[in-house]
Formats: sequence, structure tokens, C-alpha cells
Amino acid sequence: MKTRAAVAFEAGKPLEIVELDLEGPKAGEVLVEVKATGICHTDAFTLSGEDPEGLFPAVLGHEGAGIVLEVGEGVTSVKPGDHVIPLYTPECRECEYCLHPKTNLCQKIRTTQGKGLMPDGTSRFSYKGQPIFHYMGTSTFANHTVLPEIALAKIDTNAPFDKVCYVGCGVTTGVGAVINTAKVEPGSNCVVFGLGGIGLNVIQGLRMVGANMIVGVDLNDDKEDWGRRFGMTHFVNPKKVEGDLVAHLVELTGGGADYSFECIGNVNVMRQALECAHKGWGESIIIGVAGAGQEISTRPFQLVTGRSWRGSAFGGARGRTDVPKIVDWYMNGKIEIDPMITHVLPLDRINEAFDLMHEGKSIRSVVVY
Amino acid sequence: MKTRAAVAFEAGKPLEIVELDLEGPKAGEVLVEVKATGICHTDAFTLSGEDPEGLFPAVLGHEGAGIVLEVGEGVTSVKPGDHVIPLYTPECRECEYCLHPKTNLCQKIRTTQGKGLMPDGTSRFSYKGQPIFHYMGTSTFANHTVLPEIALAKIDTNAPFDKVCYVGCGVTTGVGAVINTAKVEPGSNCVVFGLGGIGLNVIQGLRMVGANMIVGVDLNDDKEDWGRRFGMTHFVNPKKVEGDLVAHLVELTGGGADYSFECIGNVNVMRQALECAHKGWGESIIIGVAGAGQEISTRPFQLVTGRSWRGSAFGGARGRTDVPKIVDWYMNGKIEIDPMITHVLPLDRINEAFDLMHEGKSIRSVVVY
Repeated sequence: MKTRAAVAFEAGKPLEIVELDLEGPKAGEVLVEVKATGICHTDAFTLSGEDPEGLFPAVLGHEGAGIVLEVGEGVTSVKPGDHVIPLYTPECRECEYCLHPKTNLCQKIRTTQGKGLMPDGTSRFSYKGQPIFHYMGTSTFANHTVLPEIALAKIDTNAPFDKVCYVGCGVTTGVGAVINTAKVEPGSNCVVFGLGGIGLNVIQGLRMVGANMIVGVDLNDDKEDWGRRFGMTHFVNPKKVEGDLVAHLVELTGGGADYSFECIGNVNVMRQALECAHKGWGESIIIGVAGAGQEISTRPFQLVTGRSWRGSAFGGARGRTDVPKIVDWYMNGKIEIDPMITHVLPLDRINEAFDLMHEGKSIRSVVVY
Repeated sequence: MKTRAAVAFEAGKPLEIVELDLEGPKAGEVLVEVKATGICHTDAFTLSGEDPEGLFPAVLGHEGAGIVLEVGEGVTSVKPGDHVIPLYTPECRECEYCLHPKTNLCQKIRTTQGKGLMPDGTSRFSYKGQPIFHYMGTSTFANHTVLPEIALAKIDTNAPFDKVCYVGCGVTTGVGAVINTAKVEPGSNCVVFGLGGIGLNVIQGLRMVGANMIVGVDLNDDKEDWGRRFGMTHFVNPKKVEGDLVAHLVELTGGGADYSFECIGNVNVMRQALECAHKGWGESIIIGVAGAGQEISTRPFQLVTGRSWRGSAFGGARGRTDVPKIVDWYMNGKIEIDPMITHVLPLDRINEAFDLMHEGKSIRSVVVY
């Protein structure tokens, strides 16, 4: 079949809207009509060429929602008509990782996914006879895409695509880091570094689980209103703090954060996030993705005196199990998404969404097909 | 009263055996006749002058066992005749830390303890009219010492002092890191860096809780027999590994350690310990104490892909609660101590114990009074 897609032909160049050829689903695969997709910093990172693992030409996009059109041989967990969210972290429920209680990092199709291919080692996309790479196993910047069955979460058919597509990455990453990775207890004092889309979702996750202080830290004062909108109780702009930021945060939280979250990808901020955690029990969770080769550091005394340094990928969520729950939480008002979707655009204007993000003018832009 | 003690009059000089004046216990304090004390690297670190918080002149020693001789006003938890182990990490059971479920770092008397003083801000020791500092709140290199009631664990009166004194630091630090900090599950694959006294106690803690692989890593082949003696299943000498040590350990453990323990105090080894932990769930526990100002570092990707970096002080043990249990485990054979006590000396020869340690000839030397 043919499908319209925004293709990254080259690093550092705008996406091009073209008609691609798409092969139907093979065994264990599913053809999905993508109805909406968010545009995330990770797409921009790969498109920029800075991602050492980036492959071109490729159909980027990993934050989608859509409808199952056709299933390949042996597919049993979804059927045509089901509403689904593609999962860049799949959940096979049978690999060593899926069977371990402490991780969500299913490894079943990791190798081929990292090579931009389906599990059989080939691509379903092609353009003028040349194969086009898949991206993160999802490729949601195409009106139709093929995914492995284990990479699809079946969701409530009443959920609006142009909102819940955001659960495919940002919402789950932020809310999940609170619930699955940190397991924040009610009454906890927390500090969130970076009030972009991930930070705001961490904040609303903290609000949902009954955190006490929710301190937001951002260099941009405009973010204060955004943070408070989702439950932030205190705002700190490091530029306006006299003296040491860490000491200020420790004092503000009455001894340090029970949990801190780094949502930027800045290794210096990661250190501040660890060191503002409470002596004896504070845990710091790294969510942001640092540039290639960058390192974090601290004195080991910080850990020996009881702080823990951890990280979170896809919010520690098992996609097929947890993503449908988060959609339900949105549907019954436990979490918000609508106000975070600041821009909705047709596919033809997808490059504008990247511009808005680079200019800091959007929380989340969504493309609808 | 008078008591014989080994006094550190100056950094970098041998201890001097002298008669000190010792004031009796004030309110909340207890006079203890020390019957035996271990000599630990931490004593040597302070004596060397490298410890930036070291104070002189002082009575060092923090790994003792003895008998209560007299109690001050208001003391209720111990009475004359009780056998006790002094606790450099006390347990007041009422501070914010003692009441928090995730830490053992009681802060009740931290400030005065760090200044070498009893909680009222004075010392009980003096020599020719000049005050001598306490050390770690314990000062077990004196035949008699005064301690706060909250810094005494009451133990089985049948336990031999010259063995269970080791529970006052090394045994609890190692076994406790396994039980309290890491909470190692049966069947876990573990890597222990450094087969000194702490490492051997980590190993026997792992044996006790039913670990599967217990890999010991040490540059000294002579340590292999020691490790196997306490439950080590595999020995790795990094000098004999071709290629990368971390890759070797990941392969040996079938993907990485569920838990790794750094028992040396070397920041480069701390990084190796983290990076040999299993993707998705491996936890690395820092026990060793690094030199002043040294830092650990790694790529944040190590944490984002599921490893945790943590630390342990006094094995995460709450002294009054946990130390008596560990003594009981020794008494009924769950853990061993006797073979680790390689040298027993009278107080007059305490400096020989430091020499043995520096020369790597002892696991633990104990001074008996």
C-alpha cells in the first residue's frame, strides 16, 4: 500500500512529505493507521545528526496513537478496529527482562529495532524502491506504520487520539518515573529540575500520588505558571538564588528532597539533583538524556551517607500493561493532558512543530493525519 | 578514675600507652570496661593525619566489646554487668532519622561526636590535666571508656569479647550491607571488589542469604583462599584478565551482577562495580571510603538503563537493634568470626597491629585488655 509520511532523508535537513510504499504486516506484526503523533525532543535529537545511533533515511516519530487495520499471522492480542498506542519499549512478557520484577526494558527485539528494522531484519517502508529505516520500532510520522504486536498497547476506544498520543512517550515517562521508578510515597518532598513536557508530567504524577512539596526548578520564569498549573507548590529560578542552589533547595525542603528528578539531560544539573536529595534516604532519578560521551560525577560520600542515584527510561512502565492504565487515568480525570498540547498541526506542517520546540514556544505539538 | 589507654597524641606518630584520667558517666552516659577492641583501617586513616576531620590528642578505637561498670542518671536500657558493644552510629530511636524507615544514620549526637566530645560538649578523658578527645563516640583504645546510652548495644553475655568486638564495625558493615542496604535476594549473582575484612564479611553475608554466584575480585591471589573460606564461588584477579574487567565480569555473571559491592575505597573501582551491574536492575553498593575530595563518575546512560548507585554506612544497621542479632547469628553458627581474627595482642603491642594491617598480613587484629 501507499502511505503519506514525513521522511528524514538526511541529518540536519527538514523532513520531506512524500508517499511511501508500505508492505503489509508479516507474522507477529500489525498494520496501524496512525491518527495523531506528538513531536518529541528525541525525534529532534536524531534528526539533528547528534544521535550517534541515528540512521537515515528514516521515518521518525515515536509518540503516536491510531487504529489497527490488519494483523499478521499469529497475532492474538489486537484485532482490526482496536485503538492502540505504539510502544518504543515493547513488552514481550517472555524475555529475561520482562520476567524480572525490577525492569521494563524488554530486550526481545532490541537488536533489530536499533538497526531501524522489523524483527525479521527487513524494513516495511520503501521509497522509489529503496528501503527506508524504521525508527524506535514505531515510525509514527507516517499515516500508516507496521509494528510488532508486542509493541502495541490496546487502549480505550473513547480516548481522543490527538491527546493520548502523548501517553506514548512524554506522559508515561514523567508520570511513570514517579510511580514505577521512584515509587514516591504520599507526603514526600520532591524537587523537579526542568519544567518542559517531561518535568510537567513528573509534577502531575507527584500531585496524583499525594506528594507534599513539589518544587520546580527552571531558568525560565515563564515556566512558573505552567508548573503551578499541574501541581507545583514552589518555584525556584537558579539565576535568582543567592549563593549555592543545592544549599538553597536543601533548606527549602527542610533537609533535602525525598525524591528529585532531572528532566533536562544536563550532567551538571544531574549532580545538583543528587546532592539536593535528603541525607539518609533521598533518591535522585535521572530522566533527561545527556549528550553522547558526557559523564556525571559526585563525591562517593553523597551515596555512602544514604542518597541513591538511579535512572528511568519510559517511566519504568511496561507498555502493554501500564499505558492503557495511564490512558484510563486521563479519561477519568486523574491526570491532565489537554492543556499540555499547545499546538495541533497537519502533517504538511510538521517542520513547524520542530521550530516551535526549538524556540521553546510549545509544551507539546501534535500532528494529526 | 584512672585507665590505661593507647593515645594518639599526634598525627603520623605511633600510639603511646599512658594512664589517663577518666571522669565517671554523666546523665545518659555509661562507663564501660573495654575487654577487647579490633584495629580498623579507619583508625589508621585518622592516625595518619589524612582524615581532614581527625582531632588530636585523642583516644582512637571504634570496634570494641566490654562490660557495663556504672550508669549515669536516667540510664534505663543497660545496667552494670551487661555485656555491650559500643556503637559509632548510635540509635536514639527518636530523631527524624531513627524514625525514618530508610536510614540508620541517627543524628542525635552527631555534632558533638564529630568534635570528639560527649553530648554535653566536654570530654571525659584527660592527661595531666589537659582534655583528650573522644573518637567516633567510642574510644575503645582505652581499658575504660564513657559512652552515651544510645551508643551501646546490649549483647549475649556468653559471647567472647575477643571475637564479637569485630561486630562493632567490620562484621556489621559487611553483613549489613548485604542484608539491610542491598536486601539481596536468594539466588542473586553478586560481585565483591576487595577481599579485605569488609569484603569477606560481605561474602559471608551473601552466603547466609543464599546468593547464587559470589564473585570475589582482588589483585592479590593470596586472597582467593580467604574468599572461598567464607563462601566465594568465583575468584577474579584483574591483573590476569585479558581485555576489559567489566566486560569479563558481565560475561561471567551471565549479563551482570544483580548486586555489586565496592569494599576498597577506590573511585575507579567504584565505577567498575557500577558498570558490571546488570542492565535493567543491577545495584551497586559503595562501602569503601574514598580519599578526601575524590569523585566517582560514569555515563548517566548506565543509570537510565536501570542500574542503581548506592552506598552503605555501618551496613545500614540500627546498632541497638541489629548488632545483638548479628552476635546471636555468630553464636549459633550462621556467620563466622573466629578465622578472621588473625592476631590477638595486648594493649602494649597495639602499634604492631597497625604494622600488620599496613603490611597486609592481617585480616583483623584484636587487642585484649
